[in-house]
Amino acid sequence: MRITIPTLLLDKNKCLSNIRRMVEKADRNKIQLRPHFKTHQSAQVGEWFRDLGVEAITVSSVQMARYFANHGWKDIMVAFPANVLEMDVINELASRVKLHLIAVNLETVEALEEGLSHPVKIWIKADTGYRRTGILPHNHVDLDRLIEFFENCKMLRFEGFLAHDGHTYKQSDTAAIQTIHNTSVYLLQLLKNRYKSRFPHIQLSIGDTPSCSILENLSGVDEIRPGNFVFYDITQQRIGSCSYDDVAVCMACPVVAKHPRRNEIIIYGGSVHFSKDVLMLENGNANYGVGVELTNSGWSSPVEGLELVSLSQEHGIVRASREQFEKYHIGDLMFFLPVHSCLTADLMKGYMTLEGERLEHLSGVPMNEMKVY
Amino acid sequence: MRITIPTLLLDKNKCLSNIRRMVEKADRNKIQLRPHFKTHQSAQVGEWFRDLGVEAITVSSVQMARYFANHGWKDIMVAFPANVLEMDVINELASRVKLHLIAVNLETVEALEEGLSHPVKIWIKADTGYRRTGILPHNHVDLDRLIEFFENCKMLRFEGFLAHDGHTYKQSDTAAIQTIHNTSVYLLQLLKNRYKSRFPHIQLSIGDTPSCSILENLSGVDEIRPGNFVFYDITQQRIGSCSYDDVAVCMACPVVAKHPRRNEIIIYGGSVHFSKDVLMLENGNANYGVGVELTNSGWSSPVEGLELVSLSQEHGIVRASREQFEKYHIGDLMFFLPVHSCLTADLMKGYMTLEGERLEHLSGVPMNEMKVY
Repeated sequence: MRITIPTLLLDKNKCLSNIRRMVEKADRNKIQLRPHFKTHQSAQVGEWFRDLGVEAITVSSVQMARYFANHGWKDIMVAFPANVLEMDVINELASRVKLHLIAVNLETVEALEEGLSHPVKIWIKADTGYRRTGILPHNHVDLDRLIEFFENCKMLRFEGFLAHDGHTYKQSDTAAIQTIHNTSVYLLQLLKNRYKSRFPHIQLSIGDTPSCSILENLSGVDEIRPGNFVFYDITQQRIGSCSYDDVAVCMACPVVAKHPRRNEIIIYGGSVHFSKDVLMLENGNANYGVGVELTNSGWSSPVEGLELVSLSQEHGIVRASREQFEKYHIGDLMFFLPVHSCLTADLMKGYMTLEGERLEHLSGVPMNEMKVY
Repeated sequence: MRITIPTLLLDKNKCLSNIRRMVEKADRNKIQLRPHFKTHQSAQVGEWFRDLGVEAITVSSVQMARYFANHGWKDIMVAFPANVLEMDVINELASRVKLHLIAVNLETVEALEEGLSHPVKIWIKADTGYRRTGILPHNHVDLDRLIEFFENCKMLRFEGFLAHDGHTYKQSDTAAIQTIHNTSVYLLQLLKNRYKSRFPHIQLSIGDTPSCSILENLSGVDEIRPGNFVFYDITQQRIGSCSYDDVAVCMACPVVAKHPRRNEIIIYGGSVHFSKDVLMLENGNANYGVGVELTNSGWSSPVEGLELVSLSQEHGIVRASREQFEKYHIGDLMFFLPVHSCLTADLMKGYMTLEGERLEHLSGVPMNEMKVY
């Protein structure tokens, strides 16, 4: 493979191992894995899941649902508060796949029930601690109102309660993640118990990569929806969800300038490639990627003395040790594990496997190819 | 116009005023305006510049140069250290447009001279204070070596010195910006004087939006290359480059959930739409956009009581005053001026004018349409 511009490399073997590990964990726990496809957004990567028996998926937008529906997926959850402005596309999707939507407000479910022409599964988003969105488990007024509404719906089929423990992303302590997870399962069980006489088959769904990666026992729910684990990244490594060796994507960036007086290397690779997502190091420095080296079989473990300290639109600044500085020349490639693989993949709009195969990402798919089939 | 998903609105009148103001300022200063097109990356917005007499442009990648060359631009500077890995595309471009490249290292210019099959203009990037890349003006050893090399080049035609005062972005004091600008002009003049006996027609080029917007007198250089001014954003407002009323782009985002207990509204609009670029407020809060309201003729000045305080991949969290909270309902649109219009436009991959016209952005143009013409 000949790389001339910033390119997102994908190590298929690492990716397959990551997928397999999660599939096996779900099997051991006797729960469904409904992986979140917002991280890879790739029809081809989706096939690797299908090959391992995955049939139900999660996405974060109606557009993403349509993309994967067009690629043969039949059981799709849009794990984002239903956007009632997209009723037409929702109806088109509901006509051909088992579509799951989530809601937080009565106004939303009223508009859905009114606007839908095909049945969809509806989940209540519970806020079990993240405080982004969802209904608090003790907010019985709002919960009762929704449940009551669902009892008389023609189009909305109440399926269960769903939570996302995004606050695990701020932890780096396994015990803290265990406590967050246990709290969520406990609260979801309370919700199930409260409403099981009216809806006997209530499902419970959770799904953040840290909990699903770190914890062995995931019982107490019916379904997990992790997403980032397909690639992982250095944020997940720091949390403890993975080792550096599990990170399955890596940016390749050309060296375009060298500054010997300050041991800084300028790469072609900036915020329009990596994203502006940043890890703050203990020494107060910003970190936009962890330097590795290309090997015969992929890339190495992190290399000492290569810090990606700054990004502007197209430039990255690498602060190097003298030894590392001397290794790289104008026109060489440098390699960095990304801080946040979801955002980097979205910006890069595609992948190149180590075998040189190009894989697509939804963000690189022309909109006119996204029309209704 | 009917908006159902996050959409980047473009106020053509504001944009035209911004362009006209800069064209007139360049004329008054008797210098060339070579606007940086990396902010809009749009063929159609490019035409608005052309209508006002602009013929020479700046871009930040070879791919962007090709896009605008395909749209009839004939004088293009790639204001990014030349990436010698892209020699084939550089040669293709050099065969059909007046191409300007920039260099920092001898290795780069040696590789260019060796690999080029058509002449290109070459500029030395001087570091006049930003410390991203460029040669320090007192680094006579490296400068002399480059100049000497250029004296014997067949393909590289030395054009002059170029600087980018990116450190003005960290200022909010006109006097500081004036000092930065004066320093750059002074240093570039020193460089010109040092080498004018060997190259009598040395050109000087600068270009950051704060200096070019705020300062009236831009004499002492031959050319300015501001880019962001075409749209501006709230970062530039804070610097003092523009007023809120000059900001020509605005995100429209559907309301998907409401949390009355904490007066927070969840919008469909996250880091894959706005970018993760953030302004830190004096109270320590993060700010990802400034709330405005739609009016008959566009959008209003900033509205009190609407803070976009957090972004995840697709969600934005708006902290609202009670009054603002009550105004918005599920399925309404909310409107935010972006922190950094360049990154937002890159992610949004296109624009909708207030008249409902769709304008393209290079990042939404399929790669197969980008082949050599």
